[in-house]
Amino acid sequence: MAGRIICAGLGPGGADLMSVRAHRAITSARHIAYFRKAGRAGQARRIVEGLIPEGATEHAMEYPVTTEIPFDSPDYNRILAAFYDDWADRLRRLTETEDVVVLAEGDPFLYGSFMHLHSRLRDTREIEVIPGIMGMAGAWAATGQPITWGDDVLSVVMGTLPEAELTRHIAAADAVVVMKIGQHLPKLRRALAAAGKADAAWVVERATMPGQRVALLRDVPDATLPYFSIVLVHGHGRRPEVDGTEVDGTEAEVNA
Amino acid sequence: MAGRIICAGLGPGGADLMSVRAHRAITSARHIAYFRKAGRAGQARRIVEGLIPEGATEHAMEYPVTTEIPFDSPDYNRILAAFYDDWADRLRRLTETEDVVVLAEGDPFLYGSFMHLHSRLRDTREIEVIPGIMGMAGAWAATGQPITWGDDVLSVVMGTLPEAELTRHIAAADAVVVMKIGQHLPKLRRALAAAGKADAAWVVERATMPGQRVALLRDVPDATLPYFSIVLVHGHGRRPEVDGTEVDGTEAEVNA
Repeated sequence: MAGRIICAGLGPGGADLMSVRAHRAITSARHIAYFRKAGRAGQARRIVEGLIPEGATEHAMEYPVTTEIPFDSPDYNRILAAFYDDWADRLRRLTETEDVVVLAEGDPFLYGSFMHLHSRLRDTREIEVIPGIMGMAGAWAATGQPITWGDDVLSVVMGTLPEAELTRHIAAADAVVVMKIGQHLPKLRRALAAAGKADAAWVVERATMPGQRVALLRDVPDATLPYFSIVLVHGHGRRPEVDGTEVDGTEAEVNA
Repeated sequence: MAGRIICAGLGPGGADLMSVRAHRAITSARHIAYFRKAGRAGQARRIVEGLIPEGATEHAMEYPVTTEIPFDSPDYNRILAAFYDDWADRLRRLTETEDVVVLAEGDPFLYGSFMHLHSRLRDTREIEVIPGIMGMAGAWAATGQPITWGDDVLSVVMGTLPEAELTRHIAAADAVVVMKIGQHLPKLRRALAAAGKADAAWVVERATMPGQRVALLRDVPDATLPYFSIVLVHGHGRRPEVDGTEVDGTEAEVNA
């Protein structure tokens, strides 16, 4: 009987923000695999520092390309596809006899790399995905404010989108989360301004991790933000206030 | 020195899907408070069954209104506001000397009841919010498919919205999560159809909990769904496939 692939969502960064189930899988693992950029420790590996059992084998899956190849070129895609094929084969062989725990930052099924292994292995191996706290939840917790009330619409958009699309989605939503910002901050700032939300936007860098920084976007100069940065705009509920207190969202809640 | 309010996000339902940090807070608590409908055990309380230390005091915060008062009437709002005022006062008094752990299903800052206490207590008490795995992450894990790839836009909408707004938001997004469905399923179905997404929609009931059920929406008859039901439409990525394999979203990932 073949072993299983267990993908453990690690949450936003703080080691004790992974689930009890993920913690148990990691601390009893015999094989642990994780993605990282070559030459880096890797964020996933950093989160589990001190949790990997003695004698467990680590498998660092190092991305084969960096920024010297344009990411939208056929070469880039071909090289990455071969990389995922190769690691899918290796994990398939490993799981002929044993379970393998694959680490994933945040939640594995939300914009993660694991899904590229998942799509290659799902037909031949049993896969358990342990959900994780999304990075955005760490980010809005860091701002000390609820992200949504009542009937608010929350949209999660990538900073890599064209400016017009960014503007349209940001304008249509009540609450907004922007990920994958990197060098797209000037464009994102213009989109937020066009959508009338520039002054309400926050930047959270390294949420729940050492070096966490929370600031209003208008107070942050244009720069390439660290990878683990999230821009967010809080919703404020769609129903009228009563005596100055928000009372949204209670219809469904009292049915809980 | 006053005690603290610690709001522990419990995650989607499975007890071992709360974070290690939340687990630690609950298992060492002296006071535990949670919302519930009068006459019910309460979902939050159910999740922590067996974890509350002996000798801890439980505070069941029972909603004062049920469906006999229309939720959009001034009475409803006034009664609920008084209820939150009352519990904020009680928790403030309790925390004059001791910490209190408040339970919250999912993530506390995403459409939760806790925010009504948070807004009333934040100026006079130190509040720690421990983020949680959102119910939606449990739901898409249950479908066994990633919710978003690459540059997908994910929108989270409430089934309580008017049909035209539902349709507009569902049409504009690549991936969709619908919460607070209850008796709004027929309307939601029409909105999904108008947005061209009816056949791609899934229903997940009681994700990660006993009695979990996953089905295509088109196979589910119109009915009032259980409260912990989520409808979702998976995104499929915005970039072309190469050799039949998805290669989206790798630009940002290799910068991790």
